[in-house]
Amino acid sequence: MNNLIDKAQASTDNATLAALEQAKKANIETVWDRYQAQLPQCGFGETGLCCRHCMQGPCRISPFGESPQKGVCGANADVMVARWISRAVAAGTASHGGHAKHLAHTLLKSAIGEAPDYSIKDEAKLKAVAQRVGIETDNRSTNDIGKDVARKALEEFSEKDSPLTWAATTVTGGRVDSFVKHGVVPTGIDSEVAEIMHRTTYGVDADAINLLLGAVKCALADYAGCHIATDIADVLFGTPKPLITQANLGVINPDAVNIAVHGHNPLLSDMISQIASDADLNEKAKAAGASAGINIVGVCCTGNEVMVRHGIPLATSSVSQEMAIVTGALDAMVVDYQCIMPSVATVAECYHTKLITTMPIAKIPGSVHIEFHESNAKQTAQTIIEHAIDAFKKRDPSKINIPTIKSKAFAGFSAEAIIEALALVNKDDPLKPLIDNIVAGNIYGVCLFAGCNNVKVPQDANYVSMIKELARNNVLILSTGCASGAFARQGFMTQEATNEYAGDGLKAVLTAIGEAAGLGGPLPLVLHMGSCVDNSRAADVAVAVANKLGVDLDKLPVVASAPEPVTEKAVAIGTWAVAAGLPTHLGVIPPVLGSKTVVEVLTSAIKGMFGGYFIVEPDPIQAARVLLDAISERRKGLGLSVVEFATEVV
Amino acid sequence: MNNLIDKAQASTDNATLAALEQAKKANIETVWDRYQAQLPQCGFGETGLCCRHCMQGPCRISPFGESPQKGVCGANADVMVARWISRAVAAGTASHGGHAKHLAHTLLKSAIGEAPDYSIKDEAKLKAVAQRVGIETDNRSTNDIGKDVARKALEEFSEKDSPLTWAATTVTGGRVDSFVKHGVVPTGIDSEVAEIMHRTTYGVDADAINLLLGAVKCALADYAGCHIATDIADVLFGTPKPLITQANLGVINPDAVNIAVHGHNPLLSDMISQIASDADLNEKAKAAGASAGINIVGVCCTGNEVMVRHGIPLATSSVSQEMAIVTGALDAMVVDYQCIMPSVATVAECYHTKLITTMPIAKIPGSVHIEFHESNAKQTAQTIIEHAIDAFKKRDPSKINIPTIKSKAFAGFSAEAIIEALALVNKDDPLKPLIDNIVAGNIYGVCLFAGCNNVKVPQDANYVSMIKELARNNVLILSTGCASGAFARQGFMTQEATNEYAGDGLKAVLTAIGEAAGLGGPLPLVLHMGSCVDNSRAADVAVAVANKLGVDLDKLPVVASAPEPVTEKAVAIGTWAVAAGLPTHLGVIPPVLGSKTVVEVLTSAIKGMFGGYFIVEPDPIQAARVLLDAISERRKGLGLSVVEFATEVV
Repeated sequence: MNNLIDKAQASTDNATLAALEQAKKANIETVWDRYQAQLPQCGFGETGLCCRHCMQGPCRISPFGESPQKGVCGANADVMVARWISRAVAAGTASHGGHAKHLAHTLLKSAIGEAPDYSIKDEAKLKAVAQRVGIETDNRSTNDIGKDVARKALEEFSEKDSPLTWAATTVTGGRVDSFVKHGVVPTGIDSEVAEIMHRTTYGVDADAINLLLGAVKCALADYAGCHIATDIADVLFGTPKPLITQANLGVINPDAVNIAVHGHNPLLSDMISQIASDADLNEKAKAAGASAGINIVGVCCTGNEVMVRHGIPLATSSVSQEMAIVTGALDAMVVDYQCIMPSVATVAECYHTKLITTMPIAKIPGSVHIEFHESNAKQTAQTIIEHAIDAFKKRDPSKINIPTIKSKAFAGFSAEAIIEALALVNKDDPLKPLIDNIVAGNIYGVCLFAGCNNVKVPQDANYVSMIKELARNNVLILSTGCASGAFARQGFMTQEATNEYAGDGLKAVLTAIGEAAGLGGPLPLVLHMGSCVDNSRAADVAVAVANKLGVDLDKLPVVASAPEPVTEKAVAIGTWAVAAGLPTHLGVIPPVLGSKTVVEVLTSAIKGMFGGYFIVEPDPIQAARVLLDAISERRKGLGLSVVEFATEVV
Repeated sequence: MNNLIDKAQASTDNATLAALEQAKKANIETVWDRYQAQLPQCGFGETGLCCRHCMQGPCRISPFGESPQKGVCGANADVMVARWISRAVAAGTASHGGHAKHLAHTLLKSAIGEAPDYSIKDEAKLKAVAQRVGIETDNRSTNDIGKDVARKALEEFSEKDSPLTWAATTVTGGRVDSFVKHGVVPTGIDSEVAEIMHRTTYGVDADAINLLLGAVKCALADYAGCHIATDIADVLFGTPKPLITQANLGVINPDAVNIAVHGHNPLLSDMISQIASDADLNEKAKAAGASAGINIVGVCCTGNEVMVRHGIPLATSSVSQEMAIVTGALDAMVVDYQCIMPSVATVAECYHTKLITTMPIAKIPGSVHIEFHESNAKQTAQTIIEHAIDAFKKRDPSKINIPTIKSKAFAGFSAEAIIEALALVNKDDPLKPLIDNIVAGNIYGVCLFAGCNNVKVPQDANYVSMIKELARNNVLILSTGCASGAFARQGFMTQEATNEYAGDGLKAVLTAIGEAAGLGGPLPLVLHMGSCVDNSRAADVAVAVANKLGVDLDKLPVVASAPEPVTEKAVAIGTWAVAAGLPTHLGVIPPVLGSKTVVEVLTSAIKGMFGGYFIVEPDPIQAARVLLDAISERRKGLGLSVVEFATEVV
């Protein structure tokens, strides 16, 4: 089982490594073992040259130009690769869409009294969203507005005669023109997913470029889905504001009933976080022997959701999720959907930990299934906590081994929070300080980090190398999703990190804002914007800046990076980031190298259409350098000063 | 290129074999060559033990029980296989759904005057559909009813609070109860597709049985999509009535401008068929040298659509589609979507044939793209015919070699047409003769043949062996899709076939009805019901019989078979056939053998839930025998006489 060849290949995070050592001793199979067992991975699959879309296959194409060069039906490498990308985007869109639809249904139910445990917590956000999407707000009750926003959001899932409202009203006019010009205007979230599945089935679309444009259209539906999810989560649970919390396995408290919320949607995790302070429940926990009561910790994006809103500490994320259980002190892991490795069930079997699934579409054999319904959310949350308290009693003290490593982490930088912070510097024109500093070169550019941890990369290694390189060159860093997890546990969401790694210009800007905000020092080096759907928040900031400058998004010195991407959702997000005009880096090579055409289109030709393009570069320093060059190119385009990095890069 | 080892492995159809010989001489690569080049196919893919749903993969599981037994995330064989099935069903559902939605949009546009070339051709069908789905018909104009039917159909694509109307109103009450009981009630076509894509992405559903039930739910949405497609096609183009036409490559006329319509939707093919008789166009064709004017021929399911409605001859279908071009006398192949092998472009390049793509979601490099819009359908059809006339002028006489083989074929047996034929025997109670004869054993049972030709099976071989075995045992044969293509070209849609192959009981019944219908002999051995969406017609007949008998579908001696299946659509149809209660045979092993659990559920445990189940049996005689046994089991259940086949099977 434990044939892991080198710990350094697993992670750069000491807490993860300590837990992994523990797993090794206990002979527990981990994701890194399974990866080793998979090596060498199939070369056809790795290059995208495999097709299983019909029962005449499986078909494979030789990556070396030998026979066969076509599948049974005649599909060539370009078609196979483009179809993989299309279906990945569709799956990502369906996932974010499912998450968003779930929230929209809950908002509707809450507004009509069918989900009594939920309420509209952020009226200002609700009104802002309503006004943006064209819903009347004057002299109307909050619930009435909420109902209309929810219904309008739900309408986004079916095919309409018009563009998706959440896409059309949240981007620049220039983007809309470009989407119309290239025929990629999305008109329905679920319907775009279905269209991709149709066009990628046997004997439909055989034109790789047409397929890729279809994928872009679907990805823009994904963007709308992400934006709906962010908006409604804020309405129901509050728009994040800056706060301080902690991250890494050390947040698991040996004296508490520890419950990890894992997955993506805040619907359940927020409810659990809310009632975790309930006196009766804490009494029960104490009665069971947990002197510190109940301790909720986050894993992955639902962890981010409760982290940015309530300061719930983040235990771990992505590739190291099994390690939370290996601490021996996690009493329950409660999951909703997405990015939950089925293996957590197997690892949990070696401990007292209860794995609790909650969603009808996401069951795992070996877990307890407590189905979550909006109608009695609080009751479900309570039942789950009681299960955890029961489990606590069955802890095996000999198995407890919590790495004491944790880091302070600032979080909660929603678009609204960033604007608010900037308003402390210039109340009348909050974007001005940001723009002035970009113009002056104190902020050389902006990089949004997103995505996952991929087992193929030593955990966090790419994030850490890239941020150091970018920050010292005065690039402002935003993060979402498991990128936030990486930076949080690695200590980059601190003032100390700003002082240590930021270039002089960036440091001065972050310090000015931080001091205006009463922090007695700079803002953290990374602004944690939220979960992976919250990439929409970064888009909002970029759009605001573009509109203020009167230029389109593809002219801004803004770039994106997913240094360690895993999921099909990342493919969807990356694709809309490119369509939004951003040079977008991937630090793991996706299965596309089998098609020169697709590679050429995605890394080059697409720039002529949307301004954005993919940069695939596994070496993090080189990646940072390419992103810096991309920023320079944009700065040049705006007539701003540029720095020559060629000689600077170490 | 032409490394085909044995012609007998390619096809059992002499026309196809003659054309293939021609292709071989001309050194033209065909589907059979490409299949040979793919051999041996990947064993992981063949058994379903390969996963490419995230960028930590590709992952493979050893089919021999060795390491690895899990993917990087921990997904096991059951999960991988169940996810493949789920996504295949989703793709199939999206395809039929796209086709249905296209028709519904056109009906709506026609009803509101935005598609002047279309009109409601079958008012009786429109009213029947309207009444079934709960739309008022009294004292309303045809267009008003049409508008409402179209809108109601379009509503089926988004998630609703209620079951899909086209599913709930077209099955037995018992089926509805069973769907509710097992949590598989579909509530939206596109939304079910999206739900599958969500639950099959990284880290969502890891419970194979839960996944399979999700696939059943999606497949029932596919059933609704198929039914909408059939209903609206009938409304716009007329409900098929029995007619006589011809099938096989010999229908290509050396003296005519030959245009093959290929794909699935009748929207364009019906328009082309309608205007092909236009005097001016025929004059143009004659002026170009085509003394016989314009000759439209069908390929695959859009071919079936115009065959069952207008008697357009079927040139070929499925795996032999390239052969239509190899005749050297096909001037244009016009395609819409689905089952169009990209290779037709390459084959067309060797001839004067113009390959014309027409749909925005289905382009093929090397073809002419003439985009089809409902708003000017007739004009598009005319332009296409003119392209074909132009191409005719460039024919190379030395390349013309049309196999002179063709067969007579009866077609057009819609559910309505079957009931009408039965009414000739018993006007007041048309189903009575059918039921009486089933009870008496003259009709031992009913088998619906559907599906494709798979390159892994000598073309039509399974169809031919199975029909002979079933017919001589008095099983009434229905067919759709490329099963119809197979039976048509192989001469089974004739009265002669009835006389030659039907058992005495079946022959007597078919003769009684045929003579009552004034055919001077029996009905054909196979009743051609239409295209693959028209499997809904067979369901309608079965539901009518079940309701009349007062039993549920899963009690009827009705079975289904896809002896040579290819597409993801076939997976979707097969899955809803099983959920509808039918024992459903597949003659090609789908990529599921890697999971004992999935195999056990789909071939056995599912019977306890829905009555239907999959039978996977590549040997056609053995398959027929298993289906006969399944029919016997049903007959026993109804207290009807049974025959012991064990000693009868040759």
